[in-house]
Amino acid sequence: MSQPWNEYLDQNKDRFLNEMLDLLRIPSISAKTEHKADMERCAEAVKKSLLEAGCDKAEVMATDGHPAVYGEKIIDPAKPTVLVYGHYDVQPPEPLELWTNPPFEPTIVDGKVFARGSADDKGQFYMHVKALEILSKTNTMTTNIKFLIEGEEEVGSPNLGKFVSANKDLLKADVILISDSSMLSMENPSLDTGVRGLSYIQVEVTGANRDLHSGTYGGAVANPITILAQMIASCHDENNHITIPGFYDDVVVAGPEERELINKAPYDEKEYMDELGVKELWGEKGYSTYERTGIRPTIEVNGIWGGYTGEGAKTVLPSKAYAKISARLVPNQSSDKITEILLNYFKSIAPKSVEVKAELHHGGEPYMTPIDSKGYKAAAKAVETTFGKAPIPVRGGGSIPICSILEKELGIKIIFMGFGLDNDNLHSPNEKYNIENYYKGIETIPYFHKYFSEA
Amino acid sequence: MSQPWNEYLDQNKDRFLNEMLDLLRIPSISAKTEHKADMERCAEAVKKSLLEAGCDKAEVMATDGHPAVYGEKIIDPAKPTVLVYGHYDVQPPEPLELWTNPPFEPTIVDGKVFARGSADDKGQFYMHVKALEILSKTNTMTTNIKFLIEGEEEVGSPNLGKFVSANKDLLKADVILISDSSMLSMENPSLDTGVRGLSYIQVEVTGANRDLHSGTYGGAVANPITILAQMIASCHDENNHITIPGFYDDVVVAGPEERELINKAPYDEKEYMDELGVKELWGEKGYSTYERTGIRPTIEVNGIWGGYTGEGAKTVLPSKAYAKISARLVPNQSSDKITEILLNYFKSIAPKSVEVKAELHHGGEPYMTPIDSKGYKAAAKAVETTFGKAPIPVRGGGSIPICSILEKELGIKIIFMGFGLDNDNLHSPNEKYNIENYYKGIETIPYFHKYFSEA
Repeated sequence: MSQPWNEYLDQNKDRFLNEMLDLLRIPSISAKTEHKADMERCAEAVKKSLLEAGCDKAEVMATDGHPAVYGEKIIDPAKPTVLVYGHYDVQPPEPLELWTNPPFEPTIVDGKVFARGSADDKGQFYMHVKALEILSKTNTMTTNIKFLIEGEEEVGSPNLGKFVSANKDLLKADVILISDSSMLSMENPSLDTGVRGLSYIQVEVTGANRDLHSGTYGGAVANPITILAQMIASCHDENNHITIPGFYDDVVVAGPEERELINKAPYDEKEYMDELGVKELWGEKGYSTYERTGIRPTIEVNGIWGGYTGEGAKTVLPSKAYAKISARLVPNQSSDKITEILLNYFKSIAPKSVEVKAELHHGGEPYMTPIDSKGYKAAAKAVETTFGKAPIPVRGGGSIPICSILEKELGIKIIFMGFGLDNDNLHSPNEKYNIENYYKGIETIPYFHKYFSEA
Repeated sequence: MSQPWNEYLDQNKDRFLNEMLDLLRIPSISAKTEHKADMERCAEAVKKSLLEAGCDKAEVMATDGHPAVYGEKIIDPAKPTVLVYGHYDVQPPEPLELWTNPPFEPTIVDGKVFARGSADDKGQFYMHVKALEILSKTNTMTTNIKFLIEGEEEVGSPNLGKFVSANKDLLKADVILISDSSMLSMENPSLDTGVRGLSYIQVEVTGANRDLHSGTYGGAVANPITILAQMIASCHDENNHITIPGFYDDVVVAGPEERELINKAPYDEKEYMDELGVKELWGEKGYSTYERTGIRPTIEVNGIWGGYTGEGAKTVLPSKAYAKISARLVPNQSSDKITEILLNYFKSIAPKSVEVKAELHHGGEPYMTPIDSKGYKAAAKAVETTFGKAPIPVRGGGSIPICSILEKELGIKIIFMGFGLDNDNLHSPNEKYNIENYYKGIETIPYFHKYFSEA
């Protein structure tokens, strides 16, 4: 039976795009306290959009941090309920000088919307708002739809667990649907079957009690940058295998079938390298690129600083050096346990000539979803309907810390139906979201609801 | 024969101090282009002070960089001539938040002048200006005195070699006298017999062509911070011996007698550590602290930066990481050769997964002065006269890049007669110069001229 959805989408295309651009204009950076008012303004804008799209009710709800937005349209309590999760907060845009256009002034070039948050996640969760409008305005809803759009995903959702626990009845549903990830390509659609977990720490190394002249003291007093570099270097061996004792202990080793499936995904190494501008890839020996980003845990240094970093030369032996370091985790690693291991590691390997402080920034558990569930099958069928090709199941490399908490608190499975691309520059300058992908998502989502209700 | 110097000094003490404070108020930071006008203002102030102190002529002379100040008082061309070298430029004051008082608002606490440049080198070269005033106004000059006060010492004196070469006649003298170093203590006066050389480079490591999401790409693409850390870690072995091939090739190994002499200098390890706030010292195995800072070459990381260094957490796999790295050199290492070795090392050890750019900031040759020269003996006798104790000859750890060039161009030896202390916080926040040391220097310098002319 033909649906009226595409006709409605065609008639409202420009408005659907412009509304998304308006949302991108709000600098909702959750990591920076100076943007608190922008966060509240953004939450209100999301609430308004939910009501206009057809929600019976929507509200901005307080948490112990930035507010969350809840909305719902209940057509019949006996029908299945889909809970859409997304986030309206974005990553800090720095380094600003590398943006071609200002990060909060969305600019369209070659069919792509360039702006911080375009793919991660405003442009993606907004597809669900517009899909609701289509279903609602064409009277074709077959499921109840609830929305939980939070404001702290980019800082590790520190307060959402408590919020969900306190609002279990409100959030009751049969499946959780998330568009906050990417697919292989428009030609090779895919569905993520999991996300990696995260342990994010900060390390501070202190040598002398003040900056010193590197001539007077150099060679006789520990340089905290040198020590920190040695500590970071010690995390990997010559095969880029992580050397920290206990780090791999709980890793579920992927079997030959799963590895075969992963390596069946279309992948052109030269194209991958050319797109990144590198002459050689780097990674754990014995694993392919998709295995390295999907089924293997990793450690990355996200930032480092210490000493004189200004113009010219300063011959200083600094007092302090710092690094932000994070691990991506796979089943069945525990974020708490790995955080403990990391914090202990950096403290224990420090020579007595320095003091080391190591502290948790935030963490999140890895999460896997089975591919034989009602929800996964509905998503696969929806993608096949609009893309004309069955999606490839792949493991996502990123992290959505709230996943394991949502499943634990609500007792239901999560389906990842992302429409972004790996080259969307997530967390980087010139983040973008292809307009084609935005519309394709809006086209696909109603089919998910239809197939899920029919299963 | 009793001299009228102390009486003149006593009568003018407060003015001598206040004039020095005025000079410290000018933020003459040579490394920063935004301070160009301050540099010119400072040069003019130095010129004015030379004329007021008794110079027959003084002028601000252009170089290819910041100007140099020349001044002279010639009493008789047949008498010996002393050329005083100093510098009016200062190190950048950052990190500003660690200063108790603003760096360019000199503040006196417990008999110490706190300000950038107080010890390095405005407070020290100004002792010579005031010593000239005393000698001149009391009609007791026995030498001709010339001044060369430059404005680029803290950036490696890149243009002074050419300037000196072009002004050989003007700068003609019998000895060069420099107060830009420290002594062991007021109880144990010392004279430096040399300075270390310097090779200062900057290393830039580039991985992917843009910042990446550490989840999507982490584990599959080289992280430039990790690679840079590995490169820095590779510079020292477990005994803190430098591992870079060729680095030690030209080092003149100090003999047992020289090492014995160095280790006779008063040194209390506990006091040294307590003053720095460290629980353990760090350095090359097999050498004492004074050997490590005096007769051994070293490599220090002066600054490092890359990725996200702001508030909170950002899960980025950065495109670039940077470090400022410098080596201190001893006789007979060559700054050019070591610079070449360092640049090649960082380029050659880089894996193919990154690009490395390494560039010279500046360098300078190590320099040694014999202790049996007329100049050294005059300095030792002057110190013994006013301190009541013969000075200990020690090797200084810092660098004055122009030394070897001055000797080469002018064909004369340099005498280091520094009145600072190691804890003056040179190049660090809260740089200070003890007022007692300032006056003691002004008291001692006239004796140098007297003994040098008598020798």
